[in-house]
Amino acid sequence: MFVLGVDPGLSRCGYCILDTTRNPAVAIALGVMTTPTDLDVARRLAMIQADVEGLFEDYRIGALALERVLFGVNVRTAMSVGQASGLIMAAAARRDIPVVEYSPNQVKQAVTGHGAADKEQVGEMVTRLLGLRTRPRPADAADAAAVALCHAAHSDVLVAPR
Amino acid sequence: MFVLGVDPGLSRCGYCILDTTRNPAVAIALGVMTTPTDLDVARRLAMIQADVEGLFEDYRIGALALERVLFGVNVRTAMSVGQASGLIMAAAARRDIPVVEYSPNQVKQAVTGHGAADKEQVGEMVTRLLGLRTRPRPADAADAAAVALCHAAHSDVLVAPR
Repeated sequence: MFVLGVDPGLSRCGYCILDTTRNPAVAIALGVMTTPTDLDVARRLAMIQADVEGLFEDYRIGALALERVLFGVNVRTAMSVGQASGLIMAAAARRDIPVVEYSPNQVKQAVTGHGAADKEQVGEMVTRLLGLRTRPRPADAADAAAVALCHAAHSDVLVAPR
Repeated sequence: MFVLGVDPGLSRCGYCILDTTRNPAVAIALGVMTTPTDLDVARRLAMIQADVEGLFEDYRIGALALERVLFGVNVRTAMSVGQASGLIMAAAARRDIPVVEYSPNQVKQAVTGHGAADKEQVGEMVTRLLGLRTRPRPADAADAAAVALCHAAHSDVLVAPR
């Protein structure tokens, strides 16, 4: 199954499509969708929507995994993360693709083995688990991979370091 | 021109389509889109998206007006308002329909004449300005009408009480 992990944001939206039928799981797509900050919000959201629809059309995605962020962000950030994530969640639901949200702690726990890991450790473990030569940059791509790996772990798909 | 005013939310999404070519402006559609709270968020967002796409298909909408809420709400509310508003803004932008956001103060000022008006006063003035027999219920519908009227006022469309 292909799992789409997303780290939603208006300026940068990290995504990772994980092939969980292979062991260890393989990232068949990994990157960041960006929108120009000088464009108005509505147009930027339409761009993200088009990019996301493209991912759903290009890959047979079986599940969408996102990180549920409710702490440590301000209202402005929450609003803009919400705007981006809403589009992505609706795109999945319209296709009857299950949407699963994980807490930041669940994601860290699944990837590093402890819920209080920092961004560095998450990035390092994502790199190892996916057998990448270099750490995914920007961090949004690594975070998207982490939540996809978290979903794989919670779905009893074996993910072992290479 | 038809102006679509929206008061976005996941449980209740107020909307008002205002015909600003008439004087006073006429609400040709006014209501609330609701989603069942026992459904998962992604499916509820897909329902809102379908409803909103329907409005854009049924009416030749020339502008989308929303209230920009950044204060007095918590992160959870901001996230869920963001999720609903993102879908609606993207739907407009994809159709090249201008999206305009107003602050709560601008909306109150435009409708009641003072920026510190309360919900009661806004509801009452919306009822008068639109020549309605009863106040729109729930308040989300009145709030959507208020932001549509605010946009009409800011676009130099004459809006006078009947």
